[in-house]
Amino acid sequence: MDLYEAMRTCRAVRRHRPETIPDDVLRRVLEAATFAPTGGNAQPWRVIAVRDAGKRRALRDLYLPLWQEYQKEHMRASAGLTGDAADKRDRMLAAADHLAAHLDVSPVIAVFCFDARRMAITDEGLGRPSVVGGASIYPAVQNLLLACRAEGLGCVLTTLLCKAEPEVCALLEIPDPWATAAFVPIGWPASKGHGPLTRRPVQSMAFGDRFGGAL
Amino acid sequence: MDLYEAMRTCRAVRRHRPETIPDDVLRRVLEAATFAPTGGNAQPWRVIAVRDAGKRRALRDLYLPLWQEYQKEHMRASAGLTGDAADKRDRMLAAADHLAAHLDVSPVIAVFCFDARRMAITDEGLGRPSVVGGASIYPAVQNLLLACRAEGLGCVLTTLLCKAEPEVCALLEIPDPWATAAFVPIGWPASKGHGPLTRRPVQSMAFGDRFGGAL
Repeated sequence: MDLYEAMRTCRAVRRHRPETIPDDVLRRVLEAATFAPTGGNAQPWRVIAVRDAGKRRALRDLYLPLWQEYQKEHMRASAGLTGDAADKRDRMLAAADHLAAHLDVSPVIAVFCFDARRMAITDEGLGRPSVVGGASIYPAVQNLLLACRAEGLGCVLTTLLCKAEPEVCALLEIPDPWATAAFVPIGWPASKGHGPLTRRPVQSMAFGDRFGGAL
Repeated sequence: MDLYEAMRTCRAVRRHRPETIPDDVLRRVLEAATFAPTGGNAQPWRVIAVRDAGKRRALRDLYLPLWQEYQKEHMRASAGLTGDAADKRDRMLAAADHLAAHLDVSPVIAVFCFDARRMAITDEGLGRPSVVGGASIYPAVQNLLLACRAEGLGCVLTTLLCKAEPEVCALLEIPDPWATAAFVPIGWPASKGHGPLTRRPVQSMAFGDRFGGAL
């Protein structure tokens, strides 16, 4: 599949069919993740492909109350939206609500872990949230998402289960000091699946020479 | 360009020619970044394409002493390496050393900024470095890197300049509370450029059902 076409149509797909993913397809999308860059090429992440039905149910049971709490906050924070923006929010929330209740239906949940000891985190102590550890994880996650798109698989990047990290680590036998960074349910799309994205135009995201400057 | 081919050959390219990048090419790679997912589709990042020669020199002057310090630490930490691993490290350090001294030669330095207020950071207060803010930034950076690969442009993801964030924000007029997450020098490759990557095999990066489990 063409690179730009894959990027341009890589939607968050939150409704999946329960059919299994063939081993060779799963292996290809996981291998795609390994091609991503990491700081000093340390590759300080690992991914666990959770296929076991009991473990997927356990992840859903951890996810659902976190989602319900998040949803309430999101509705409060976006109460001022009207018209198209409100419709769009409602559609996204309905799909995310479906995902939360059916997380165990997705045949694979890819759980990304990382080891912060193997990272040079250059933005600690700046008096704002650190993000740089993510530079050695989320490029790999993005490769996985794009590879799924190319294979016709639907998926979505979620991070809410980090709030239940101790329980997740116990469930998946993730050893200290490894931690969790992303949870990607993967499955064949149950409804329309991929398609054009809703994004701000490039001229409002990219500037020239200074913040706010014309490109 | 084929998606997997782009991923499989997307090397860190640290030696660039000074020739400018045509506007339409630059616009395409920046637009590719906008297609990436972000939490709640908030798109809480912006990118500044720094082409101004004086500003690129100023970024190099900030980068060089940070790099020299990092390099010393890296040599100390990797002093035990021998044979192929030591050779590989030395080649990487030589290229990174070249980059640090010639950062201003790259015709564009893409500086990614973010606004943490627009992020749901789900891994705060866990007693380990937070990374989740990066889930709404580095997928976009990875899209940019892959798009550069497809266009024949060399580039590399760096984060060292976060250590000089106040100076960078002053230079590029980045307003509070926006912060910096990635610095990607971009240019036409001066030497061999892209090619096969050195990565661990997928079976050592991806597990099945539990950490360490066979895929």
